[in-house]
Amino acid sequence: MIGNVIVGQSGGPTAVINSSLVGVYKTAKDRGATKIYGMLHGVKGLLDGQYIDLSEHIKTNLDIDLLKRTPSSFLGSCRYKLPEICDNRKVYEKIFKLLEELEISAFFYIGGNDSMDTIKKLSDFAILINSDIKFIGVPKTIDNDLVATDHTPGYGSAAKYIASSMKEIIRDGLVYDYPTITIVEIMGRNAGWLTAAAALAKGEDCEGVDMLYLPEIPFDVDKFMNKVKNIVNSKRSIVIAISEGIKVADGRYVFELTNHLEFVDAFGHKQLQGSAQFLADKISSEIGIKTRALELSTLQRCASHLASRVDITEAYQVGGAAVKAAFEGETGKVVVLKRISDDPYICITDVQDVHKIANFEKKVPLEWITDDDYVTNDLINYINPLIQAELTPIMVDGLPQHLRLVL
Amino acid sequence: MIGNVIVGQSGGPTAVINSSLVGVYKTAKDRGATKIYGMLHGVKGLLDGQYIDLSEHIKTNLDIDLLKRTPSSFLGSCRYKLPEICDNRKVYEKIFKLLEELEISAFFYIGGNDSMDTIKKLSDFAILINSDIKFIGVPKTIDNDLVATDHTPGYGSAAKYIASSMKEIIRDGLVYDYPTITIVEIMGRNAGWLTAAAALAKGEDCEGVDMLYLPEIPFDVDKFMNKVKNIVNSKRSIVIAISEGIKVADGRYVFELTNHLEFVDAFGHKQLQGSAQFLADKISSEIGIKTRALELSTLQRCASHLASRVDITEAYQVGGAAVKAAFEGETGKVVVLKRISDDPYICITDVQDVHKIANFEKKVPLEWITDDDYVTNDLINYINPLIQAELTPIMVDGLPQHLRLVL
Repeated sequence: MIGNVIVGQSGGPTAVINSSLVGVYKTAKDRGATKIYGMLHGVKGLLDGQYIDLSEHIKTNLDIDLLKRTPSSFLGSCRYKLPEICDNRKVYEKIFKLLEELEISAFFYIGGNDSMDTIKKLSDFAILINSDIKFIGVPKTIDNDLVATDHTPGYGSAAKYIASSMKEIIRDGLVYDYPTITIVEIMGRNAGWLTAAAALAKGEDCEGVDMLYLPEIPFDVDKFMNKVKNIVNSKRSIVIAISEGIKVADGRYVFELTNHLEFVDAFGHKQLQGSAQFLADKISSEIGIKTRALELSTLQRCASHLASRVDITEAYQVGGAAVKAAFEGETGKVVVLKRISDDPYICITDVQDVHKIANFEKKVPLEWITDDDYVTNDLINYINPLIQAELTPIMVDGLPQHLRLVL
Repeated sequence: MIGNVIVGQSGGPTAVINSSLVGVYKTAKDRGATKIYGMLHGVKGLLDGQYIDLSEHIKTNLDIDLLKRTPSSFLGSCRYKLPEICDNRKVYEKIFKLLEELEISAFFYIGGNDSMDTIKKLSDFAILINSDIKFIGVPKTIDNDLVATDHTPGYGSAAKYIASSMKEIIRDGLVYDYPTITIVEIMGRNAGWLTAAAALAKGEDCEGVDMLYLPEIPFDVDKFMNKVKNIVNSKRSIVIAISEGIKVADGRYVFELTNHLEFVDAFGHKQLQGSAQFLADKISSEIGIKTRALELSTLQRCASHLASRVDITEAYQVGGAAVKAAFEGETGKVVVLKRISDDPYICITDVQDVHKIANFEKKVPLEWITDDDYVTNDLINYINPLIQAELTPIMVDGLPQHLRLVL
């Protein structure tokens, strides 16, 4: 007896998180689920009784195809962490009461490592109370920092957007005949996967970025400045990609060094500008070369118009595989991606115990980062298959069309 | 006798400035030009004897199609302003000596209103010395601030990128269930055309931006803060688009209300940056709502991967029409776009005396800006046809392919 299922989205969105939602929805429907509920704003919304019947909002095949191309979390998200079971059983009892009222047989949660913690705790609690409800995690994060999976859905599209934008920025940087430096700040507090994607810009038609700084390696400001001084003698335009999370040896973020420049905003407090801005100001003032800072910001996680088709497909697959696993009796598991061949690229889904995934963080291996502030071909070859191909946006009146949740 | 021609690119690049280059190149070739030279970095490079034979770099039809999709100025650009003729005839004599040595019959310059000043002065000097060389300006600027033309090539693609990105940012902003404010800073020093394009985001599938601030209207910080306080009571996510050039009543830019490094370019224009950050800091500290600032920055002028097909086509047409005009004996002219029908949108090229265009600036008419910090439907209807349709990027190994000048 399959009955009803419920799905939620949690954590920061990606360009393809809704493709996983579609994967859960369509597979559950095809495999005979009676009702497919969507919790609004994850478990936090569920605790407030906020959920919808997805079939009332995804009505046609066109809706499905639009949803695959819609950025942000269709159902809304949350950054809510469940308390430890021993500290607060009431929260769990409330959730399970709700799930039982809705006759839920399987609970799917699309999220990163914080969200997998929710699956871990709920599946643990199900064991405690001898509940039959299955709990399966569906991985997503642009940060690619989940362990036990080759990569995470969401990463490939962010990487494609970053590499494409870098190519355009590199061309733009060469426009004038005087030296210019562009420092591009890329997301990723602790893991440099996204910043590494900037290396993909280099190719037959593009000079590539000149330096790449990942948070895995302590950032040395003096070494950086010396390198800039050296390169500037031989190159007209320098483009540098840095992770927002780069830190100096004593553990401070680079943007925390700004007090040396005594930046104070209009409200009297020290302005914590971005690391790229800090370095750009430093180069401008010490070397005297026009330097601009550029933050890719939110766009790198929501640029559905340039999503990777491989990523969209895999996001769909992990959603579908989660349903398959639950319906086959699995619980307390996370669907993972397993690369079984590099060339040709072949990737399948698998399931892993959630206890091996939740709350862990996968960083870029140090052997994939070179001494000359770049990354190895192994790292480039790892990322390259993930950005391949496109799913053409559905353009309406000149703009990409999305599916919007109207309550 | 048509002989040889020369073409240059000047000022800030656009996503489609190379489509105009292709328009000049292909039309000149088809109409029998012997050699088509490209000056490197505009007249500044030309003065240093830097030019190329374009046929050695644009060899195939694939090259042409790649060039149409290549951002930045293929030939490089400059921000060089010719001196007044009465102040320094030597510069002009040097340029004309070079042009005569190259047996140039026509000189094309792709640029904005500063660049049209170059066409004006060179064509004036040609009259003074009785030279037969024809000088024709080819308009481009993402700013859309040229007079005497319905709009400028480059604007439509920037507008399409801005509106598409706003749609993605608006979806992203709604992801959490607590109030968030996003302030997006858009280019446009004195004219609000680009910021106005953010209004196109609103549609059947998108809530649109909540407020739009154009530089044509003095910015009132208190009124702005009060409005935010009001809207925040009824809306979970607020998205605000501001022009980088918004100024308070006493003439200071909004970013000048904070301490900030200041850069001045060769034309004495201040480099603007940081108004969104200033307002975000103010909202965060005074209203206590999480507010993020986002600068679309360089990406809005180089996002060829999302260029408007209407824009690419018109950019090509103005390049071709410039050649036609020169070969028919015109000089001291600028090709302009003339909209002869709104619905259906039909636009043709025409030529205008350069003296009526150079150094003038076209702002958004005040009657197209509403009292409630938005824009009228007339303004939206004006922009809408310019963002229509796409020219699919040529994707190679997952990324948009460009044509790179290799010297």
